[in-house]
Amino acid sequence: MHDLDRIAEAYIAAWNETDAGRRDVLIEQAFTADIGYRDPVMQGDGREAVATMIAGVQHQFPGFRFALNGKPDGFADMIRFSWIFGPDGTSVIEGTDFAAIEGDRLKRVTGFLDKIPT
Amino acid sequence: MHDLDRIAEAYIAAWNETDAGRRDVLIEQAFTADIGYRDPVMQGDGREAVATMIAGVQHQFPGFRFALNGKPDGFADMIRFSWIFGPDGTSVIEGTDFAAIEGDRLKRVTGFLDKIPT
Repeated sequence: MHDLDRIAEAYIAAWNETDAGRRDVLIEQAFTADIGYRDPVMQGDGREAVATMIAGVQHQFPGFRFALNGKPDGFADMIRFSWIFGPDGTSVIEGTDFAAIEGDRLKRVTGFLDKIPT
Repeated sequence: MHDLDRIAEAYIAAWNETDAGRRDVLIEQAFTADIGYRDPVMQGDGREAVATMIAGVQHQFPGFRFALNGKPDGFADMIRFSWIFGPDGTSVIEGTDFAAIEGDRLKRVTGFLDKIPT
């Protein structure tokens, strides 16, 4: 069995780390080398692309942080988890990611938006 | 742009059709030939496997029908939609499916359960 909580938490931690060096370590822990990521506004392949996307989001939303929303669930090699994103643990944007897992890392992530500012 | 509503409705129609011949037609319309389907309780590849799974669910839950829950959303070649399942449009089981689209058909479907009877 995959540790779904730990996998989702590793993903959130990578998105929240603003120090580039520490973030690279967290990205290595959270994603496979051939990670493919896509959501309605971004897409990229490989850990370097993920690092660039995360840095871009942090630049666009300074002070915002991600937090898990509810409990991850999954089966076989699939995981689903929802998140909130905002300053100080508030929710400005919400989304749900589903992903394929390889070992204890995310291999393909597809993100959908559940709530966007109106 | 994909017609997400139509794609999701074609999926629901296939799951609700109890006549095997008509169901095969709806499955051909809703799924690519190399469809891969998996959820926490079933998985299969190809339209024949999908037909077998649908027949099995109908046998297990006679009189139940699927209905879309909310509006499908998506981006690029991805779609997400939620559904309810129960007798006469009621909700006994609920779920959310994520899928890759090819043309106007579903190619890979991954289903998660949102509500199961307690």
